[in-house]
Amino acid sequence: MEERSRVAPWAPPRAQRRLVELESETDGLGLNEIVRLVDAVLAEHRGRLDEDGVVLYAGTNTMSERARAAHEVSLGSRPSMGWPGDKFQTGLDELDMLEVLAPLQVAALMGGEFAEVRLQSATLANLACYTAFARPGDTIAVLPEAAGGHASHHAQGAAGIRGLRVVDLPYDADLFGIDHDALPGFLHEHRPALVVIGASLMLFPHDVARVRAACDEVGAVLVYDASHMAGLIAGGRFQRPLEEGAHLVTMSTYKSFGGPPGAAVVTRDEELARRVSAAAYPGLTANYDASRLAPLAVTAAEHAANGPAYADACVANAKALAAALAAQGFAVAAPHLGWTVSHHVAVDAAAFGGGDRAARLLAEGGVYLSGIGLPDQAPGEAMRGLRIGTQEVTRRGFTPDSMLEVAALMRGLLIDGRDPAKVLQEAVALRRSTQ
Amino acid sequence: MEERSRVAPWAPPRAQRRLVELESETDGLGLNEIVRLVDAVLAEHRGRLDEDGVVLYAGTNTMSERARAAHEVSLGSRPSMGWPGDKFQTGLDELDMLEVLAPLQVAALMGGEFAEVRLQSATLANLACYTAFARPGDTIAVLPEAAGGHASHHAQGAAGIRGLRVVDLPYDADLFGIDHDALPGFLHEHRPALVVIGASLMLFPHDVARVRAACDEVGAVLVYDASHMAGLIAGGRFQRPLEEGAHLVTMSTYKSFGGPPGAAVVTRDEELARRVSAAAYPGLTANYDASRLAPLAVTAAEHAANGPAYADACVANAKALAAALAAQGFAVAAPHLGWTVSHHVAVDAAAFGGGDRAARLLAEGGVYLSGIGLPDQAPGEAMRGLRIGTQEVTRRGFTPDSMLEVAALMRGLLIDGRDPAKVLQEAVALRRSTQ
Repeated sequence: MEERSRVAPWAPPRAQRRLVELESETDGLGLNEIVRLVDAVLAEHRGRLDEDGVVLYAGTNTMSERARAAHEVSLGSRPSMGWPGDKFQTGLDELDMLEVLAPLQVAALMGGEFAEVRLQSATLANLACYTAFARPGDTIAVLPEAAGGHASHHAQGAAGIRGLRVVDLPYDADLFGIDHDALPGFLHEHRPALVVIGASLMLFPHDVARVRAACDEVGAVLVYDASHMAGLIAGGRFQRPLEEGAHLVTMSTYKSFGGPPGAAVVTRDEELARRVSAAAYPGLTANYDASRLAPLAVTAAEHAANGPAYADACVANAKALAAALAAQGFAVAAPHLGWTVSHHVAVDAAAFGGGDRAARLLAEGGVYLSGIGLPDQAPGEAMRGLRIGTQEVTRRGFTPDSMLEVAALMRGLLIDGRDPAKVLQEAVALRRSTQ
Repeated sequence: MEERSRVAPWAPPRAQRRLVELESETDGLGLNEIVRLVDAVLAEHRGRLDEDGVVLYAGTNTMSERARAAHEVSLGSRPSMGWPGDKFQTGLDELDMLEVLAPLQVAALMGGEFAEVRLQSATLANLACYTAFARPGDTIAVLPEAAGGHASHHAQGAAGIRGLRVVDLPYDADLFGIDHDALPGFLHEHRPALVVIGASLMLFPHDVARVRAACDEVGAVLVYDASHMAGLIAGGRFQRPLEEGAHLVTMSTYKSFGGPPGAAVVTRDEELARRVSAAAYPGLTANYDASRLAPLAVTAAEHAANGPAYADACVANAKALAAALAAQGFAVAAPHLGWTVSHHVAVDAAAFGGGDRAARLLAEGGVYLSGIGLPDQAPGEAMRGLRIGTQEVTRRGFTPDSMLEVAALMRGLLIDGRDPAKVLQEAVALRRSTQ
């Protein structure tokens, strides 16, 4: 009988084997040994990903030096509840400026008037919207998981925390988009309080105006989850959901936006903003980690100054990578639509044993990403896609020419069966050459 | 007509005045000006609170140098979902160790077997418990707000996010504790799914065993919110809620525990742990800011090594401060019970115009804390108490002798009407003398 994990004896077998192995390494360690172990972990992370890795995770980034410098750890353990000018704690007046700078800038970048920036993740930003605009037992309509609908849109995630019924929006897998012909009838049938669009894999924009028109027919609030697209939207690229009709935008601040971990909810409507604000505080936060706000304000200021060029570079790199991968023989998703107009690229990895297996092989060669489901895969089929995002390598200095080399690395690992150790050396060299 | 805030035009008038003033300072600022403004804010915070302040907030702390050194910003923007050995993203294997070290150590310190450490705040830890053990429409029973029942226990907070009905537990204001005679009948009447004890002001332990016995009669799950007390409990002081019968402990990791911002849920019961785990992921988190876990692991290791001495020093300082304040003429709460056996002290500030006004005067003299309601104040009465915590000054090197000086500073400001600017100089000198 296999030993059970002490951390999570309910985890799947593969995880328990790994957990048991790690748990045995921690037995009996004292303070100094634990400090050394933690230091070693952090050093390994910095070396592998920050310094040497070709990091193509769809939802990650590296903060600018300016933004990193604005992160003050001691802020994180300061209590700070209530509005500037009306705080419970004294002595925190200077922080009020962060609570003004961050929301004003984020709102302006996203084409809104109001931004709620206290929530620690986009999952919680979505939950704040569910709380503000739906009651337990209400229905919301979201994108199917195979089309990139995020866990927080679904019943196993934040929607279930609020006790909502969740239905999948009609989706056209061939067009990588919502089935607009079916949408009005669907909304009339299900009468959702909220419709959530925006996905974890977004190759093409939504027709937000058309979705909004259908929402208006049934009185549904339209939320666009821009967790992945926020950095492009901030730069005025891809699409402008609030200008196109979304009632609210939710977003991660650390993915393509490239700031600290955290989230925002943005809207142009004061009454919607007021309700989201109450759901954020005192609903979902009391004290909150205010150390995020300083790097967020700096990151937003950087987008205001340089956002369009950054967004253009991310998209140019994605298009170059898609073209290079197709030329190398990969089944890049959506060839009939031009592969992508965002910083995301998807590859059908069925020929390599699926997305998960292919991702693990790529990691051995220093290329880091993850698997994902593809919209046209069969129900119950394991994740067939590879998901790529170019935002971090763009910040690391990669150009469309670098993307030719990335595609060659991937071909070497997945198609040519080259020795991963050799490819790893080339990946590290490529990464170091761009710094 | 007064100008309306652009950030929060729904905020109360005092807040809007402050917001409008700050908003006008941000108009038209470019990137370099924003970076300078943010730098100035952070410098002012460091100077006022970290270097010069006598910080007596009940729920704050300063991390040790070891723990600060373990905070690696770049971890915060790495996606990492799923169990070690079963992650969606590749290339993050080294972080698995943090997901083993942190929960094992936190669980052991708190007298439990399992710790869920991914949640970003104790508000969310409480919400995970509500989700795991109650359905929308169910009733939970919590401490009244005037007795320190936290916003997240009440309907305007996390309990309302889950759609719960909230009733106040019977409370004996004179004994600063639950009314045990009334409790069994109350629980039979209301049949709560959950009972939440533990408060934002805790001078004395709960009789956990007696509450648990009453919970068992109606099948209620007993949650002890140790957000404020976790640092003492980790050191084996104050009380040991899990050993005394609580099903679950929720806690902040940055208050008396003295680690990074964040939370934990600890239990001895595998089935309860499994349900909390599912509420934490994929319920309330997807990717989460894993940079917290390294300083959390280091802080926990420090408690394992030095926790009892730290807890004893916090309590000794609180008792010394309470005695000194009483000797200086302050109405320290609970004199008939010996004032406190924790790191908290409460003062009745009615003679100084209430807790909020007294806190603002103290801040002018360099002593930082907050107001709080007292259990015996009238319904609707403004917060009458001052709430004090000794955990940060203890880490800054304050001793019971220092507490005599703190009491003298407070007397100077609130009773003798001394010039706050002069007192501020003395407060800074005291603070610097202890480093």
